This record gives sequence, C-alpha cells and structure tokens, in this order.
Amino acid sequence: MCMPGTHEAVHARLSRRGFFAAGVAAATAAATIAVRPSQAQGGGRLFDLTHTAAPGFPGYSPDWGIVIEKVASFAESGFNMNRWTVVEHFATHLDAPIHFSEDGMTADRIPVEQLMCPLAIFDIAARAAEDAETSVTPDDIEAWEGRNGPVPAGGCAAMHSGWEARLGGEGYRNAGEDGVMRFPGFHPEAAAMLMERGAVGMAVDTLSLDVGSSSTFDTHYRWLPSGRWGLENVASLGALPEAGATIIVGAPKVAGSTGGMSRVFALV
Amino acid sequence: MCMPGTHEAVHARLSRRGFFAAGVAAATAAATIAVRPSQAQGGGRLFDLTHTAAPGFPGYSPDWGIVIEKVASFAESGFNMNRWTVVEHFATHLDAPIHFSEDGMTADRIPVEQLMCPLAIFDIAARAAEDAETSVTPDDIEAWEGRNGPVPAGGCAAMHSGWEARLGGEGYRNAGEDGVMRFPGFHPEAAAMLMERGAVGMAVDTLSLDVGSSSTFDTHYRWLPSGRWGLENVASLGALPEAGATIIVGAPKVAGSTGGMSRVFALV
Repeated sequence: MCMPGTHEAVHARLSRRGFFAAGVAAATAAATIAVRPSQAQGGGRLFDLTHTAAPGFPGYSPDWGIVIEKVASFAESGFNMNRWTVVEHFATHLDAPIHFSEDGMTADRIPVEQLMCPLAIFDIAARAAEDAETSVTPDDIEAWEGRNGPVPAGGCAAMHSGWEARLGGEGYRNAGEDGVMRFPGFHPEAAAMLMERGAVGMAVDTLSLDVGSSSTFDTHYRWLPSGRWGLENVASLGALPEAGATIIVGAPKVAGSTGGMSRVFALV
Repeated sequence: MCMPGTHEAVHARLSRRGFFAAGVAAATAAATIAVRPSQAQGGGRLFDLTHTAAPGFPGYSPDWGIVIEKVASFAESGFNMNRWTVVEHFATHLDAPIHFSEDGMTADRIPVEQLMCPLAIFDIAARAAEDAETSVTPDDIEAWEGRNGPVPAGGCAAMHSGWEARLGGEGYRNAGEDGVMRFPGFHPEAAAMLMERGAVGMAVDTLSLDVGSSSTFDTHYRWLPSGRWGLENVASLGALPEAGATIIVGAPKVAGSTGGMSRVFALV
C-alpha cells in the first residue's frame, strides 16, 4: 500500500492517468520569482519583444516559414479558424537545448522559473552599423559589468544590434552573392563567459545566436547542450535599459519540441 | 519636410518599410501595468497555467489536433527540428475576437496591456463534480464580489471547474452516445455581467467558453465580438487564490490569426 506523496504513489498515478495527468502535476509546480525594485514601486511598463509572424518573415533558411490555411470562415461556419504549418525555428522563437544536442531538454521541459528572469542587454548597434560581422565579445560583457555589476545568475543575456531596422528588406538575412549571410551574434567566448556567470538564456535580434557567416555554430553548440535556451528574432530590445528589465518568455509547451514561436515580453 | 515624431514622419516610415517595420513600431509601444501588492513585497510566485500540447490532447472537435513531423535530426544534420501542423484552437489556446465575428481583432492586434492583467477565479468545482452541465452564473459573480469587491475592470475572469483532473480519459470531452459533450462553461448572462464590469478576458479549464452541450455558442457570440479574448484548456487554476493573482498571456502573434496555442502564466 502506498501513502500519498511517496514515489510509489506518484508512479502509480502516472501509470494510471498517463502523459497528460503528469503534465498537470508538472504545471502545478510553481517557482518563486524575484521582482525587480522598479516593479516594487507599485507599477511597471510591459514591452512586447515579439515580431508579428507571417509568410514572408525571413527564415534562417529561405524555405523555413509558415503556411496559414483558412479552415473555417464566419460566413460559412459561423466562426473563423486557420491551420498553421510551421517549423519550430521561425520568427520570434525559442531554441531549446535539444535543438543542438542529442538528448537535451525539450522546450516543454524548461523549468518555469527560467522563463521569467533578469535581462542584461549588450548594445552593439553602433558597431553593427559599420560591421555586419561584429559580435558580442567578452570585452562587451566586462564593460557592461563595470557599469552594472555581474551579469545576473539565472538571467538572460541579450544582444541589441539594431538589426530589426532591416526587416522588410533583404538586409535582415543579408546574404551575399556567395549565399553566406552576414549579421551579428554572440561570440563563442562570450557564451563561455556567460555560462560562468550562470546565465540561463541568450537572446538576439537577428536570425541566429551565432554570427550569420558561421558554418560551425560554435555558440549554439556551446550554449544549448549545456541545458540553456536561446531566443532569436527578438524585437524592441533598443527600447529597454541595459540592466534592470525582466524578460518573460512565453515559450511553446509542445511535447518533444526543439523550440517554437514564442510570445516574449519585458517588464521594466 | 517632416520632423521626427509627426504623423507624417511615421506614415512615411510605414510606407517605405512596409508590414514588418509597422510591426516593430507596434511592438515598441509599451503599456503601464499595475503590479499587485503581493509582488510589491519584493517577491512573487510564478505558476504555469499551460497544458503540454501533444497529439492525443483532446480537441473540441475530435479531428482538431497537432501533427508533429521531424524535419532534421541531430544524427544526420547536427541539429534537431520539427514542423507542426496545428489548428489555431488546440490545447491551451487563445480565442481572438475574430474567432466568432466577421471582422473582429486578430490575435496579433490585441493590445499588449490586455495580456497581463488581474485574474478573478470563480471556483465551481464542487458543483461541477455533481453536474457536468453547470456554469458560472451571475450569482457566482455576486458571491465573489461580496468577498473580494468588484471584478477588476481590465481583468480576466476564469472558471475553475476542476475539469483537468479528467485529462487522460474520455471524461474531459465527456461526449454522450448522442455525440453531445457535457462540461461546464460560462453562462451567457455571466458574460454579460462581466462585460459591464469591464473585464477583457475570459478563461476556462474546459474545451469551450460555453458549456459543452451548447449548439448556439451564446457566450462566445456575446463575448468575442465585443473585442474581448478568451482562453480555453487552462491548467492549474485550482492552485491560485480566487483574487489577487496576475495572469500573463503569451498569446501567439501570427498575422491574421483567430487564436492559437499560448503559454499562460500567473504571478501571485
């Protein structure tokens, strides 16, 4: 006989009720979250860091996109509904650890407390305007820390390169005649330094955590297999302070997913 | 000549840069959000109100689901990626105003300040355990207001019926031999009262804002065309206080969408 609360009891419940009931139990778990001082004043400003996804939004690969089909119309059925066919890495989206690992965490397994965390923003927009292949480096992190103190453990590190101003044209993918894209990202050594600090998330306002010309994806391979997540094509980072904001990641909760379109907010 | 910040300047920018640049401008708009007293104490607890979506999660219609296809594997390509084919009304998801109207707001147009708001929870679980066709009524709202004061204007009203305990079996859809589903929802008169209070969102822990047996969808047709949104298949509402929580709706931001899978949190 099992007493409630024992492993045996939990296991028996899972066996009986199966996958979804286990999901319910996991969902009920709550995390204690630190709220920043500016929010403790009794108010806050909510920013939307999400681009509108639509056919035509640039894909990392030109054929990665979304197809939207109308499957019910108000005139005929009394309600409207569409069906989407979309890859997990399109528009403003999450990279889960398993995206670049054999058996890392899937998006649905990321602990909820990682999805609302302090946001450190590295602004390299001035440099990126001159050099599409620049990246966030350890020097940028050290300079940021000189002004703000250590990058918060449990936080998200974001690159603001100003790249979203190029949306609506070819300059966002910025592919040359050789087919190679050129846009900024995080240098692998910056990723290593952020891992030492205990950051859990990395966000970029471009199509990739790595610089666009990378063929080895060193930043992806360093960051994601360590159990950390990424966000790509993030909007409006330039509207936020470089320290003090809280990011809220409305990551998809699809079983086995390697990522997916996400609604991302910041609270300042 | 236009000075920056004039309507002319904005219009010229939109014309030049088109759809995505307009999205960027919209995304940059921020909303001032009231943070609840419990959060002002310097901490908060984050709850995940999202079920894990997977093939087999019950659809409102049995054929509304998700298909997940692997399109890249780590062994062959060095990274993992799937493609989803999914209707906009599956698992924990948003109903946008246009879902039940000719020309209502699409999900991507819902103002960001509506997506983080006070949460009022109407607990009818005891009644629902005896009567699958019960609903949240004006009496429930008045009783709640007697304990907590008026339902907050700009807030989200949620039904906790305890229905998620039925996930993993046929009892969640609870269709009879006649094919009619029987589960709780919001009574249309409760919807009308919540509209008077100025609530902007409605959430249920079942498959529909209306009771399952409804063939006329009176609550949907009253609520959504008024410019309000809904959430269906919400998880873990029973873990929250009936007043005082803040809901965070990670709604999809897909152009023209009538809703879509959403990541939903509560901060207490």
